[in-house]
Amino acid sequence: MSYEKESFEALIERMRQYLSEKKYVQARETLVDLEPVDIAYIMETLPEDTIPVVFRLLPKELAAEVFVELDSDSQENLIKGFSKSELKEVVDELYLDDVVDIIEEMPANVVKRIIASADADTRRDINNILQYPESSTGSIMTTEYIDLKTNMTVEDALKKIRRVGQDMETINVMYITDPARHLLGYVTIRDLLLADENDTMEEIMDDSIISASTMDDQEETARKFSKYDFLTMPVVDKEHRLVGIVTVDDALDVLVDETTEDIEKMAAITPTEDSYLNTGIIATVKSRIPWLLLLMVSATFTGQIIASFEDALAAYTVLTAYIPMLMDTGGNCGSQASVTVIRGISLDEIKLKDLTAVIWKEIRVAVIVGVILAVCNFAKLMLVDKLLFHNPITFTVALVICLTLIITVLAAKLVGCSLPIFAKAMGFDPAVMASPFITTIVDAISLLIYFQFAKMILHI
Amino acid sequence: MSYEKESFEALIERMRQYLSEKKYVQARETLVDLEPVDIAYIMETLPEDTIPVVFRLLPKELAAEVFVELDSDSQENLIKGFSKSELKEVVDELYLDDVVDIIEEMPANVVKRIIASADADTRRDINNILQYPESSTGSIMTTEYIDLKTNMTVEDALKKIRRVGQDMETINVMYITDPARHLLGYVTIRDLLLADENDTMEEIMDDSIISASTMDDQEETARKFSKYDFLTMPVVDKEHRLVGIVTVDDALDVLVDETTEDIEKMAAITPTEDSYLNTGIIATVKSRIPWLLLLMVSATFTGQIIASFEDALAAYTVLTAYIPMLMDTGGNCGSQASVTVIRGISLDEIKLKDLTAVIWKEIRVAVIVGVILAVCNFAKLMLVDKLLFHNPITFTVALVICLTLIITVLAAKLVGCSLPIFAKAMGFDPAVMASPFITTIVDAISLLIYFQFAKMILHI
Repeated sequence: MSYEKESFEALIERMRQYLSEKKYVQARETLVDLEPVDIAYIMETLPEDTIPVVFRLLPKELAAEVFVELDSDSQENLIKGFSKSELKEVVDELYLDDVVDIIEEMPANVVKRIIASADADTRRDINNILQYPESSTGSIMTTEYIDLKTNMTVEDALKKIRRVGQDMETINVMYITDPARHLLGYVTIRDLLLADENDTMEEIMDDSIISASTMDDQEETARKFSKYDFLTMPVVDKEHRLVGIVTVDDALDVLVDETTEDIEKMAAITPTEDSYLNTGIIATVKSRIPWLLLLMVSATFTGQIIASFEDALAAYTVLTAYIPMLMDTGGNCGSQASVTVIRGISLDEIKLKDLTAVIWKEIRVAVIVGVILAVCNFAKLMLVDKLLFHNPITFTVALVICLTLIITVLAAKLVGCSLPIFAKAMGFDPAVMASPFITTIVDAISLLIYFQFAKMILHI
Repeated sequence: MSYEKESFEALIERMRQYLSEKKYVQARETLVDLEPVDIAYIMETLPEDTIPVVFRLLPKELAAEVFVELDSDSQENLIKGFSKSELKEVVDELYLDDVVDIIEEMPANVVKRIIASADADTRRDINNILQYPESSTGSIMTTEYIDLKTNMTVEDALKKIRRVGQDMETINVMYITDPARHLLGYVTIRDLLLADENDTMEEIMDDSIISASTMDDQEETARKFSKYDFLTMPVVDKEHRLVGIVTVDDALDVLVDETTEDIEKMAAITPTEDSYLNTGIIATVKSRIPWLLLLMVSATFTGQIIASFEDALAAYTVLTAYIPMLMDTGGNCGSQASVTVIRGISLDEIKLKDLTAVIWKEIRVAVIVGVILAVCNFAKLMLVDKLLFHNPITFTVALVICLTLIITVLAAKLVGCSLPIFAKAMGFDPAVMASPFITTIVDAISLLIYFQFAKMILHI
């Protein structure tokens, strides 16, 4: 069955109906045609006590696939209700990297039950993966891959794939190792199907391999997938022995999560694990308050700058009215530059050695942008603000505002483009050098420039 | 050969050496072991006139793969230097969707040459794909997939794969169609290898298919890849006939590009096609100036609000010093809320129906955040600003500032969380409702609140 988005709400309603009327056969028939992630979504919208009922309706293999897609609360509740043999069945069906993902979210007593239900081999593999740090490549790999030997023929290889393929996460790429498990090369399933039956792996394998190391950062590994268009990537230990593979679906998840983290950091939010609606009020407050406090306190500088120029402002009260415009334009220019550079760094398009190229580019952009904004603003000041609103604008006041604008734009672009690169050079995350941080710095700079020009030109 | 990042610069140096000494055999041997994207990178760092030389050193198939990875300027230069037969060779080797991608970047005369060099079938397919709008799923699909019939046996299917598999972009998933090309189901290569030779496609195919339509937005299709963990996805026309497939590597590229676009829009930048360093000065200025101008002009409101409260500010000059802090904190609170909601919408975690849940959540967060900030700020005002800096802060002035802070945070969070959802509801891109836009609105609101409290509490 192919299903459409429009009928999805109707489908949930139908499921609700079946369950309340105990029409389990119909419920089962409806579900088995759906994708696991959609079944999980439907289960989570149903009353909590029906989740185990629905789960037990599903065929074993599908049930395991659905289990992976459930949120961790539902997983925990299901496990708590499972008999020992039920839990063993689910764990046996799951891919190893999924078991590890689930374990990482569960409380200790549930973890103990899961590990106890796995057989000795699986238990060893689980413990192996669990030892890698959270954001390392080792933590997202699976050990369920097919490895072949150099002297195997294509016929041998296909036989092995037919024998063990069912339990592997992928059979699209097979890796060739020596007896000490050193990685030598790879063949794709296409290579095998198109080769002669008697060719050996040594003859047909590709030995130009790009691999990740277990301790590599998982984001770096995920970026390689998008750079090299891989479907799987081998993971090796320090001695270049094959210990696992990463598949593209997990790499994609890492990319999406890491990008969300970058975006949150750019908006002065400490990243959280859960999705927005699943994050509690207190957790949300905690993720937002540190930067707000820091930035609020650092605004003391801008406040003190204004306070120290009180006399100038008292003499020309009209100057105060343009403080927000100057600060906002400076902030916007700074965040344009910083956000572009931060994204470029995270996509590996901008490297440390590009610093001068970036600065030179931003200087030229800033001069053009600054002059355009200043000219437009000058016209606006003289035509709208003076003639229409009767603000006490003189030619010299307009000059002060527009000169400040040009220098502020220049300063904002320079600070905005260089701070993320400096952060990167010093080993910090460039993303925290985004808008809010830059805005605070640029605010202070623009006010200082403003009052200097006011003193010079208006002779205050 | 497996190669390490550390030696990459050394490798480029070595290539330079080989080429200047005309050691072409060594140059070729070095290159053939590398990944296409890395060879392209090396070629682009070499002197421009050596690019055709290096290109002609590469074996035909690898040369085509490298060609795809070159930037469009280098591609154009190469094509201009190609003989007719050379161009035909490259076009024949390329996957169809890559040819289309290249055509979309080339000037008309180059496009004409490319299309003229393709055979009749390819030409028809190219023109078919070119007709789809730029951001549609049709424009990123390829027509090089394997389709099977229901009555084919596994043996037939494997024979067909062996026959045509070489020219297909993937053989990991095959699609089953009826004589009128309606999509009926799919089988994976694993299904075929694990099934009995005499099973028919009808017996082993999975008929629960999630497909995209040619006119679907490409971002929507790409998101389905990450939701359902697909490697390929079938694309159908309005009559549900199979017309192409999208592969996960192209979906990944779309996700990365669309995310960059979202981030740029959030920073008030009109998205550009090229990477930062490849975008010219004028193009960069054009992408940044529209929003800056709009936001600068809209700051007239904040200016006018301040101008109209000139008397109040003259009476209590200390109030001016806290305008930047109030505006920045409001802006930061607003962007925290808006950026979180925008990302949630783009990941499909937040839907229109969640509006009230989002608002209710933000109200509670805002009250807690606002009170914490106000209390901290009150302490700072009385202890640091008053005692240390001797600012003329009184209890009532501090009260005005802190009450304004609470209401500003509340207003900022409400505006920040709801505007993106309203934008989505009205069919606009939520990303443009990010920080800079929200900041401008929140600035005006916070100033109005500030002066109202000042009037009420300080009796100005």
